[in-house]
Amino acid sequence: MQKILLTECTDATGLIAKVATTCFEFGLNIIRQDQFATNDDNRFFMRSVLEGDFSENNESKFLQCVTAKLPDDAKVQLKDKAKLPRIAVLVTKEAHCLGDLLIKSYSGALHAEIVMVAGNYPDLGELVEKFGIPFHCVSHEGISREEQEERMMKVIDDYNVDYIVLAKYMRILSPKMVAHYPLGKLINIHHSFLPAFIGAKPYQQAYDRGVKIIGATAHFVTDNLDEGPIIEQDVIKVTHRYDASEMAKAGRDVERIVLLRALNKVFDNKVFIHGNKTVVF
Amino acid sequence: MQKILLTECTDATGLIAKVATTCFEFGLNIIRQDQFATNDDNRFFMRSVLEGDFSENNESKFLQCVTAKLPDDAKVQLKDKAKLPRIAVLVTKEAHCLGDLLIKSYSGALHAEIVMVAGNYPDLGELVEKFGIPFHCVSHEGISREEQEERMMKVIDDYNVDYIVLAKYMRILSPKMVAHYPLGKLINIHHSFLPAFIGAKPYQQAYDRGVKIIGATAHFVTDNLDEGPIIEQDVIKVTHRYDASEMAKAGRDVERIVLLRALNKVFDNKVFIHGNKTVVF
Amino acid sequence: MQKILLTECTDATGLIAKVATTCFEFGLNIIRQDQFATNDDNRFFMRSVLEGDFSENNESKFLQCVTAKLPDDAKVQLKDKAKLPRIAVLVTKEAHCLGDLLIKSYSGALHAEIVMVAGNYPDLGELVEKFGIPFHCVSHEGISREEQEERMMKVIDDYNVDYIVLAKYMRILSPKMVAHYPLGKLINIHHSFLPAFIGAKPYQQAYDRGVKIIGATAHFVTDNLDEGPIIEQDVIKVTHRYDASEMAKAGRDVERIVLLRALNKVFDNKVFIHGNKTVVF
Amino acid sequence: MQKILLTECTDATGLIAKVATTCFEFGLNIIRQDQFATNDDNRFFMRSVLEGDFSENNESKFLQCVTAKLPDDAKVQLKDKAKLPRIAVLVTKEAHCLGDLLIKSYSGALHAEIVMVAGNYPDLGELVEKFGIPFHCVSHEGISREEQEERMMKVIDDYNVDYIVLAKYMRILSPKMVAHYPLGKLINIHHSFLPAFIGAKPYQQAYDRGVKIIGATAHFVTDNLDEGPIIEQDVIKVTHRYDASEMAKAGRDVERIVLLRALNKVFDNKVFIHGNKTVVF
Repeated sequence: MQKILLTECTDATGLIAKVATTCFEFGLNIIRQDQFATNDDNRFFMRSVLEGDFSENNESKFLQCVTAKLPDDAKVQLKDKAKLPRIAVLVTKEAHCLGDLLIKSYSGALHAEIVMVAGNYPDLGELVEKFGIPFHCVSHEGISREEQEERMMKVIDDYNVDYIVLAKYMRILSPKMVAHYPLGKLINIHHSFLPAFIGAKPYQQAYDRGVKIIGATAHFVTDNLDEGPIIEQDVIKVTHRYDASEMAKAGRDVERIVLLRALNKVFDNKVFIHGNKTVVF
Repeated sequence: MQKILLTECTDATGLIAKVATTCFEFGLNIIRQDQFATNDDNRFFMRSVLEGDFSENNESKFLQCVTAKLPDDAKVQLKDKAKLPRIAVLVTKEAHCLGDLLIKSYSGALHAEIVMVAGNYPDLGELVEKFGIPFHCVSHEGISREEQEERMMKVIDDYNVDYIVLAKYMRILSPKMVAHYPLGKLINIHHSFLPAFIGAKPYQQAYDRGVKIIGATAHFVTDNLDEGPIIEQDVIKVTHRYDASEMAKAGRDVERIVLLRALNKVFDNKVFIHGNKTVVF
Repeated sequence: MQKILLTECTDATGLIAKVATTCFEFGLNIIRQDQFATNDDNRFFMRSVLEGDFSENNESKFLQCVTAKLPDDAKVQLKDKAKLPRIAVLVTKEAHCLGDLLIKSYSGALHAEIVMVAGNYPDLGELVEKFGIPFHCVSHEGISREEQEERMMKVIDDYNVDYIVLAKYMRILSPKMVAHYPLGKLINIHHSFLPAFIGAKPYQQAYDRGVKIIGATAHFVTDNLDEGPIIEQDVIKVTHRYDASEMAKAGRDVERIVLLRALNKVFDNKVFIHGNKTVVF
Repeated sequence: MQKILLTECTDATGLIAKVATTCFEFGLNIIRQDQFATNDDNRFFMRSVLEGDFSENNESKFLQCVTAKLPDDAKVQLKDKAKLPRIAVLVTKEAHCLGDLLIKSYSGALHAEIVMVAGNYPDLGELVEKFGIPFHCVSHEGISREEQEERMMKVIDDYNVDYIVLAKYMRILSPKMVAHYPLGKLINIHHSFLPAFIGAKPYQQAYDRGVKIIGATAHFVTDNLDEGPIIEQDVIKVTHRYDASEMAKAGRDVERIVLLRALNKVFDNKVFIHGNKTVVF
């Protein structure tokens, strides 16, 4: 059996030795390990894939022992590699990111279980239901932003999910809704290579500026619009022949690929949040 | 003999037919042709590589005849494909872009003649002089910005150049200096994928934001800092392991490649300026 | 109304002028035009997007007139830009390319109509039928290759399709089946950047060779395995950490993107076949 | 002071713990560490950047102690991070890769010292000598292959170099010359994305095949032509508009960038050779 050990603490000498020795003592073999320490604020991050005896007794003693050897601020977690996280997907009208997630999930290529999809329009319900996944329309029409968010959160929270993926959900979350979830739970795909073209209509902005590359950014959601920690970015080249709608069309393939790559990293416990940045192993 | 016909005017029906027919009548074969018409403001751009009789008499009659058939606002130019433009290169202390230009020029792979290099520091003089090219140090120390620019322009203008390449010239040109040259003559390499990270220290900005891609942008210089028409852009991927100085180091290879590609396009008469954008064939 | 004029003939002087003038005479405005002439064997290819009067009378006279002015070997076609080609998709067990086509088609982002899917295994039938598209299983088990191909061709030919897309159809077509269709009708996605790793198990080959990039190639099918005219290729980087199965997993995202890009080009009439190569506008 | 510890041995449980604990005991802090174990043949590779007391006494005891704890087949090396390797560069007539190395070296951006350049033609001597580096012409004309290689090896060996870089040296080394140097000392840049287009004239081969991407490969040299362990590869896109010479021109920028990236990795002790593959940290 394999589990993933996630370690995060103030950097200090001997951390790798301490963790590795403890693993060795408990008969846990390190299959793969990545670590990183920041220069500016002295934080240590490590992801270790361990194989061995994860009986309840051995595991709890191991965790206790590791934690005791690390600095006081250490956060130590053990994640079951085989367990699929439960995710909710939020959408509006565009099908390309959602479609990718559904197909990947259907063919066993997404390391997560899509337990529900919710949209502020009903348009994508038919597609979702083809795959036997519940779809909820939580319209914003005729009600306040606050009211719509309340309803949305209620719908989501009934499903007890690990992550909420904003797969082209074209509404800006209020600080209240963002604060309702722990940092790291909300993941968004933004249709520009941030920090270029923050905000609305990035493809129109890109067209107006005459850029030769367009891109997409997957990031964790924080209070500041499009300012959360970036997980993954990519770009493609465009030319003067692309108008704003053609940029949008070309960009969709970058968006869905970037979102998938980011989610795979997150679901595989390869992403640490470090202030407004990420460490991605 | 080959010449390049550059045509720019208000779009209208029959433009390609008119130019192509005139070429045919004057015995000029179209070797390659690219054209583009904008949707939003109805401008037509065409680049035609012509082969045939470019005796003075035939050429001037041809130009007269083509121009007569085109809309009144047409700009028509014939460029000798074999003629190397004369360029001045402006630098500060960094050698990577300048070095590339010198090597490419030395080995006959730059379609231009570097007739002089000028810097606001003397550091790169030694390198330039290895290649038998005059170097001028026009220091900014102890004098006003205006005075330094006056001196720089005087030095440049003595050489009668076609283009001025800012190859990591780390000074912002005043509106007066920009206005001293026609639009399209000044080409800059900026060390970010504009419009992200305008202004100073883009790699530090990129590091602080935690981006996963960094890039470079070659553009024509206008009054607005880093806002001129973009000719070429490219990016490379970075990770959390790159600090600002490692980003800068990795970025240098993008900068020099992007600058070279942009210059090759410009020197080959493949770039039209269209408002704040470019058409690049 | 817009139509696309495709012209292919021996290169000669004045071809652009002749076509453009004829368009002008028949009131057909050239919205966009691309042309290319080969150096080695002197072939001329042109794609012109025309707008204007395509009444039957005007169109047939125009075609007659254009053809009369061109060299005797000219092939001239007019394609209705709005008309969706009918396509058959052939699959085996892998869902990623097929899934992309289904989602793109469902959301109106594929310029074609998928009229049927056929597989040599039944596995993907369930997915196809979710989208209301007929699926045919034509198993190869217990029968000869010839017999299976006969049955497959019969099934396909009932649908009167314009293109047959091999979306990870893991069987090598016999020369007889290839010859049954005109060149250009069969499009395949091969899971390597050809000509590297021709034949079976390219990811295993790539792993064994220790390459740092893997890729995919979309090409027209000819008699020679993996040797047909290439339409589109792309690659991604891999490291020593990828075993053959992880390369395959990473490669799937390249495969589906490359196939889609190639199909969009073909369906938009932007691809000419020229011997064993393509001209892609 | 920093040194790099390179460890390679049969994989076993507790290796990381053993090395890390020993480092800790000797007061050597692990600044950065990467490790990898192969699945198929069970090899373990680790690169650790250590900081601390590298007095002769401490270092030799540390190495003794580490080695004693590792499997018998372990190879353990300590490399001084600050020490520049001495390199010889072999060339023929093309300046682009050599030029890059000279400029990077001149501006302090190459982590190596170019102590000599040798060519089988005199053409690049002038360029090399601008930089105050000795150039040797070892012509192949009028003498046997064996004789030329003997002379070349004699010239190279006088300089006591750590690496020999074949920077577009257009001669195939005989098995005898290859065997004269330890595996890992000879680094070549090949002008295709291997294993496509092995052998002579890869750009002509690429043109004839009609590929849409071309590339370059940096690899260690072994007896089998173009079959040595690959260090780095990259590609660029081309179109039908590129003939073989334009592909070669475009390819040169990939070649020099790929060679530089590979050399930086090798000179920074980030590359392990593993059979016919590499592990690149």
